[in-house]
Amino acid sequence: MNYPNSNKKYVKPNISQSRRGMSLEDDLNLSNKTYLEEGIAVIHKKPTPITVVNVDYPKRSAAKITEAYFKLPSTTDYNGIYKGKYIDFEAKECNLVTSFPFSSIHPHQVKHLTDVIKHGAIAFIVLRMNAHEKDFLIKGNDFISFYNDCSRKSLSYDWIVKNGHEIKHRGLAIPCDYIKVIDKVFDL
Amino acid sequence: MNYPNSNKKYVKPNISQSRRGMSLEDDLNLSNKTYLEEGIAVIHKKPTPITVVNVDYPKRSAAKITEAYFKLPSTTDYNGIYKGKYIDFEAKECNLVTSFPFSSIHPHQVKHLTDVIKHGAIAFIVLRMNAHEKDFLIKGNDFISFYNDCSRKSLSYDWIVKNGHEIKHRGLAIPCDYIKVIDKVFDL
Repeated sequence: MNYPNSNKKYVKPNISQSRRGMSLEDDLNLSNKTYLEEGIAVIHKKPTPITVVNVDYPKRSAAKITEAYFKLPSTTDYNGIYKGKYIDFEAKECNLVTSFPFSSIHPHQVKHLTDVIKHGAIAFIVLRMNAHEKDFLIKGNDFISFYNDCSRKSLSYDWIVKNGHEIKHRGLAIPCDYIKVIDKVFDL
Repeated sequence: MNYPNSNKKYVKPNISQSRRGMSLEDDLNLSNKTYLEEGIAVIHKKPTPITVVNVDYPKRSAAKITEAYFKLPSTTDYNGIYKGKYIDFEAKECNLVTSFPFSSIHPHQVKHLTDVIKHGAIAFIVLRMNAHEKDFLIKGNDFISFYNDCSRKSLSYDWIVKNGHEIKHRGLAIPCDYIKVIDKVFDL
């Protein structure tokens, strides 16, 4: 494939011909919906944590939140169950060409991944590299080792290709088929 | 024990001498914090789902949500991992003396419990009966059978005592020690 923008640092997202413009979150939500409907797995995105400060209760209508703030998430965004196993992952999109910076992931999310792995979770990161139009599954242990032991502040794209596992789509209904990669990578 | 209010239909919450006034959610959050810190389990409450309609971005300060609405949750409130097992539960407080009405739990939460049980989850309801100052764990399967098969619209308190499993506290740091009940009830 030819990447006309590969000498630029930022490129516009452009993942799939068929789902151009859909975010990774959209693709994961649709995949999870299909997994649920087909009885494959039960995995949901957690709601965004919000601190509610003020709520109006107008007569005859729904409570209206009039002041609230986004909170930092203390865990990863997705969890659930597959083949009896606890599944836990964080999803990230990256527009850089040559690396994924650690600053994109919160330290307490790394701590959470570390915690659930200790208890036997299937934990990983789903990383969409927009410039390369590719999605990768990076095993939690692989990511954490590199994050903790290395003086680098990012994963290079070369590292991602070598250590990550590419995620393909399975038709329109499963635009990011990470379950198939779990089967292979975690030997389920 | 003597219940001076037992002839009334509603009574004020009054669970524990030491934690009077704390909600079940407070007690579960503190218990989960202790489980996490002691390396026993990783279980979190999911954030309340909120639809954000309008956000202000004032200069030099945090984004302020100025219009938002509460959404119905599509799953249970709590999930996580314990002894390698996927844990999933809903927590409810009930101020009625003689029963817990099914109208307190959303049908899609019952569907969610049914779904995760099919995949091998440890799923249950934590029910605080304020009038009796008691917490119970009700196995997901027991609850669902009764919910689906029976013409009744509530669990009677007698049914709860007979089929539920009382949850005690373990000191101040674990005011609702449901993990201990899981060990016994689910034979982990």
